[in-house]
Amino acid sequence: MRRLLRGLALAIGYPAAILLILATLALAARYVQARFFHEPLAPERLAEKDAYLAGIRPADPAAAPNFVVILFDDLGWGDLSSYGNRLIRTPRTDQLAAEGVRMTDFYSAAPVCTPSRAALLTGRYSIRSRTHHLVFFSDTSPAATLRRMLGLGNELIRDEVLVSEALRAAGYATGMVGKWHLGGEPGHRPNDFGFDFWYGVLWSNDMTPLHLYRNEEIEERDSRDPGTWSGTFRDADMDRGDGLDQRTLTQRYTREAVAFIERNRERPFFLFVSHTFPHVPHFASSQHAGSSAGGVYGDVVEDLDRSVGTVVDALDRLGLGERTLVIVTSDNGADYNGSPGPLRGRKASTYEGGQRVPMIARWPGRIPAGVVSDELGMNTDLFPTLLGEAGVRPPSDREIDGRDLMPVLERGAPSAHDVLFYTSTWGGTIDAVRDQRFKYRASTADFGRNKPQLWRMDADAEAHNLIALYPADAQRLAERLQAQRAALQENPRGWRGPEP
Amino acid sequence: MRRLLRGLALAIGYPAAILLILATLALAARYVQARFFHEPLAPERLAEKDAYLAGIRPADPAAAPNFVVILFDDLGWGDLSSYGNRLIRTPRTDQLAAEGVRMTDFYSAAPVCTPSRAALLTGRYSIRSRTHHLVFFSDTSPAATLRRMLGLGNELIRDEVLVSEALRAAGYATGMVGKWHLGGEPGHRPNDFGFDFWYGVLWSNDMTPLHLYRNEEIEERDSRDPGTWSGTFRDADMDRGDGLDQRTLTQRYTREAVAFIERNRERPFFLFVSHTFPHVPHFASSQHAGSSAGGVYGDVVEDLDRSVGTVVDALDRLGLGERTLVIVTSDNGADYNGSPGPLRGRKASTYEGGQRVPMIARWPGRIPAGVVSDELGMNTDLFPTLLGEAGVRPPSDREIDGRDLMPVLERGAPSAHDVLFYTSTWGGTIDAVRDQRFKYRASTADFGRNKPQLWRMDADAEAHNLIALYPADAQRLAERLQAQRAALQENPRGWRGPEP
Repeated sequence: MRRLLRGLALAIGYPAAILLILATLALAARYVQARFFHEPLAPERLAEKDAYLAGIRPADPAAAPNFVVILFDDLGWGDLSSYGNRLIRTPRTDQLAAEGVRMTDFYSAAPVCTPSRAALLTGRYSIRSRTHHLVFFSDTSPAATLRRMLGLGNELIRDEVLVSEALRAAGYATGMVGKWHLGGEPGHRPNDFGFDFWYGVLWSNDMTPLHLYRNEEIEERDSRDPGTWSGTFRDADMDRGDGLDQRTLTQRYTREAVAFIERNRERPFFLFVSHTFPHVPHFASSQHAGSSAGGVYGDVVEDLDRSVGTVVDALDRLGLGERTLVIVTSDNGADYNGSPGPLRGRKASTYEGGQRVPMIARWPGRIPAGVVSDELGMNTDLFPTLLGEAGVRPPSDREIDGRDLMPVLERGAPSAHDVLFYTSTWGGTIDAVRDQRFKYRASTADFGRNKPQLWRMDADAEAHNLIALYPADAQRLAERLQAQRAALQENPRGWRGPEP
Repeated sequence: MRRLLRGLALAIGYPAAILLILATLALAARYVQARFFHEPLAPERLAEKDAYLAGIRPADPAAAPNFVVILFDDLGWGDLSSYGNRLIRTPRTDQLAAEGVRMTDFYSAAPVCTPSRAALLTGRYSIRSRTHHLVFFSDTSPAATLRRMLGLGNELIRDEVLVSEALRAAGYATGMVGKWHLGGEPGHRPNDFGFDFWYGVLWSNDMTPLHLYRNEEIEERDSRDPGTWSGTFRDADMDRGDGLDQRTLTQRYTREAVAFIERNRERPFFLFVSHTFPHVPHFASSQHAGSSAGGVYGDVVEDLDRSVGTVVDALDRLGLGERTLVIVTSDNGADYNGSPGPLRGRKASTYEGGQRVPMIARWPGRIPAGVVSDELGMNTDLFPTLLGEAGVRPPSDREIDGRDLMPVLERGAPSAHDVLFYTSTWGGTIDAVRDQRFKYRASTADFGRNKPQLWRMDADAEAHNLIALYPADAQRLAERLQAQRAALQENPRGWRGPEP
């Protein structure tokens, strides 16, 4: 028995010990490399990007319109009163909708922050900018190190062309206020991607350290200890007194946005107001706290609504209303708190509630008032739309997935998208595709129910699989999804033309 | 190095080898016991149950009403046209609603099959009958063995009093058609729990073997090989030709239900029509397949709707309509397919979509027509309601959680429930509590968002936490939840009076 036990012990122990030693060495080496000697993901077409930007001709300052894009963080499709919310009151955003177009079938390109923002600024699905694996993390956090160990990167790749860069090259004043979430590494911050001016934070407000920047400088330092797992994500109930006082963020962003508009009133400008809220943790301005029937979340959203009002009032007061396209949208669907309206799913899901978001566009004189549109749109559309109105041609060396929205907004033309694709948060691929009438999902992760689904978008909240009723439509959309997957596998970055 | 490796190998290997041997022996012993020598869970108050049943006096055959309870399996709150579905047409169930009361805030006592059915038949929360851990499995499946190894049992405990037993003791003819799912062990089947007549299947239609029983006898044998993991759960696309032809189930159940009514037209009867569908896999009757705009799922639900119509027509044809309370409801919310309507969550969740279900009651002459009620109700209420109408006093030795629904149905009285509790599928406890206005959830499993929630039920689909606005209500409901948890821990079976 003793010999048997010893034999068994050695039979188990030897391979286990060898594997343990090898794995420890390999992991340690990769950790040291990722933590202390990492490089950002290598750009592939930096020279072509530089040449493109250098070739952009200045816009006519007398004719070029201004652009103000207001992005909420995690605001759900059903969180505004104009989208049916019964607790939260958002009169200023509703008024914007009454003065312009409200879109019911508009999407963020991804169901979480980082890839959605990359898509909005580049006009491309997030897979093209390699931002499609979850989100970026605070630079000093172990999560960032883990990303680097896995080869995923933790900052936007340098050869992407952002709308801010193209407009800046055309002579626009470019300003950003608020959350970036596309990399904290020097060289990969807003001022490095075409924004003359930036005031805001590098990442989500549940990540540490949350310093408040004015361009390259930290204007207010988050005093909490960064870099531990416990510090990487902060509890939604965290102490207000420690670190940055988040209750002040929305009002500070608003003040800076108005100041940017005032500073640049005499020339074309692009202002990107990228709010920190209603992402968790939730902090509303002190003077309005407790006033919303929607609770703390409602307070936060009503703060944002007042901010929209203040920014639009500034434009109108300066006589810039008719020269300015204002867009309000969200970077993905509702998180745990927040309302997806009647839609299935939430943030991080490719059900509708994860990616369908509010979208309101106002441009008096150009866009008709009080229109509700169910045409398809996606936040990738902002890139070609803004460039088109500024008279800047988009880069030709790369696929631009967005389409010019102006025909839809201006005269109710049919969407230029025959289909839109839904990008998975985790899987590194696209899960689903929709056209105006149907949505097709190749498979689901639900145990035992992993089969293709076809849903009607006009009468059904992704509840009933209609694949047996519409086999030809299912087949058509399955082929589109398959073709897109193959194209993304073949050429994920979407390069056109030969390698430079 | 060689000595170091050998030392490491022994240090890892010895404890691992010893643990492995001990764990294997213990597991093997427990497996053999659970697989071949298991006993059902020991009853605690069998003698009191028998005394209670023996003491029930016969109901007056001339005055006692009939009861027909029609239960759907996994039908979602939003799957009937009377509850807002836009694809599926359910005219016969809608007609029943038009002739009676339709409840909007009625609940199954649990978000999955077995505990919900136990609660419906016993009038008690599922924890009291020890049925609250997930569901029971096919007797020969490894999942059943695993349940027994964990001490959870796989059949309804013998000392529970079922509505069928009490009504039978009062002289009712008691019939059940359809799915049982409260144990396959002989001695624990429908005929052992008060049903004179049973025609149906022992468990869900994705479990094997799915024999079709007529009382103790197998009328049609499922030819598939039982007892392996692969056979325990069947794919929703499985071959129709093998085993039991599920396309025939709804019609067979309906035929047997009508025959039972015809056989017992001259005496009071209780008929429990416990449909197999719309649980997965989905099979509709061949002659109507493909006719619903709701796809295969819609076909299945429209089949069920026709079945409701056929049963009600039989009652009316025999002149029994005004002597019969008909109830239509579901055992839990929508599964992966199916519509929760505007509610959050689905089957297996204690969000509303997991437990809030359709409930329609019709009794011409007693219940007014065309009423929609938002009073609270739960399927535990059927036990006291039916017993009350039959003139049978409920057992006094145990807690009955249900309340008589007749005042609500008959004259719109306020619900006798000041609160209802939501029972977790997995955790063995209650997650949440609601009253007419608020729902309070103690915590959630959502990463990083694990905090108490208070929702308003009148204007919000569990989207916005209002705990900061209504601290007193949150406190009150938290205390109710805590008190109920403590009571269930102290006396899970809900015994009253001293141990016998």
